[in-house]
Amino acid sequence: MNTPPATDPSRAEARRQQILSAAAQCFREHGFHAASISRISRLAGMSAGHIYHYFENKEAIIAAIVEQDLESLLQMTAELRAACDVRQALIARAAQGVIEQLDPLTAGLKLEIVAEAARNPRVAEIVRNADTASRKSLGETIRIVRQRAGHEDDEEAIAGMIEVVATLFEGLLLRTLRHPQLDHAQLTLQVQAAIENVLAQPS
Amino acid sequence: MNTPPATDPSRAEARRQQILSAAAQCFREHGFHAASISRISRLAGMSAGHIYHYFENKEAIIAAIVEQDLESLLQMTAELRAACDVRQALIARAAQGVIEQLDPLTAGLKLEIVAEAARNPRVAEIVRNADTASRKSLGETIRIVRQRAGHEDDEEAIAGMIEVVATLFEGLLLRTLRHPQLDHAQLTLQVQAAIENVLAQPS
Repeated sequence: MNTPPATDPSRAEARRQQILSAAAQCFREHGFHAASISRISRLAGMSAGHIYHYFENKEAIIAAIVEQDLESLLQMTAELRAACDVRQALIARAAQGVIEQLDPLTAGLKLEIVAEAARNPRVAEIVRNADTASRKSLGETIRIVRQRAGHEDDEEAIAGMIEVVATLFEGLLLRTLRHPQLDHAQLTLQVQAAIENVLAQPS
Repeated sequence: MNTPPATDPSRAEARRQQILSAAAQCFREHGFHAASISRISRLAGMSAGHIYHYFENKEAIIAAIVEQDLESLLQMTAELRAACDVRQALIARAAQGVIEQLDPLTAGLKLEIVAEAARNPRVAEIVRNADTASRKSLGETIRIVRQRAGHEDDEEAIAGMIEVVATLFEGLLLRTLRHPQLDHAQLTLQVQAAIENVLAQPS
């Protein structure tokens, strides 16, 4: 419990991940409010002081978790834009996205963070800034698909397409908790078809 | 604070509603964990003992909130099935459903309940039983639309349609909190178009 903070960058990063992982588990199992730094420190196997060396408070831990999710999304959308057939790559990748969102552990943590955002302005700001960046990147991807299919859309139309695609993916987080026995394969096909229709809508 | 429990049925119902309303506000503002019966009783302006007269515990309050939402949904889908053009009635009613889901107070409370379901088996059971009843009722409605359009679907296909429609509506709860400035009118049109496509899919 008295290990000093790591000075080696890769060890420091490993410690940071260890804290994020313990915090994620605490947020899921007890909720943000009851997941105290002392509870997180016990689960991470380090002192509270050690945790404060890496993160100022629980909001900073949430910010780091949200930042990691955002980075994955930005990397994924950048890969899609680099594909030869962006539309096909997006539809294919959506299947994996559906399965990721249907993981109940992922869902529990993301819902807890957004539920906290509804009452905590600092968490709301973190979540909303990440969402702005996500929408921008998803919008660039959708714009390429639409342009290559010969559509000319204004910003508002693209924003509408982004929003309904985001709505579909976010909804999965709630569905997997309300209906754990749902048919993953069937829902994946339905979500893919819905995205195909969004991308094929008239200009 | 020392008002005795109401014996008159309509007064008892008014007291019950007063408790549910105070509890909903507490769950939203503090989360389920921190929303103690004593906090709810202060906000409702009655004693904790008085609350226990109506509800055994916080889970029973959640059950009553979920039950009210379910009753609204069952009534709404029954009305849709009684419409002359069920498909058109469903698409038209979806617009109102979108606006209701985008209300941030509704969204905050529903997310808090499902986040709690992810860690509390008693809340999970409440939420899942209500979801089963909702799916049944939505499924009956979708089946009528499909049959009248000449489609013959098996149970699995109908279940897939129910699930993607539910996913869209649930997703709105997260979108309104992550992106409060989203264009409600544009998203309503996109959700309506997505539902039309679900209902028009090949058998």
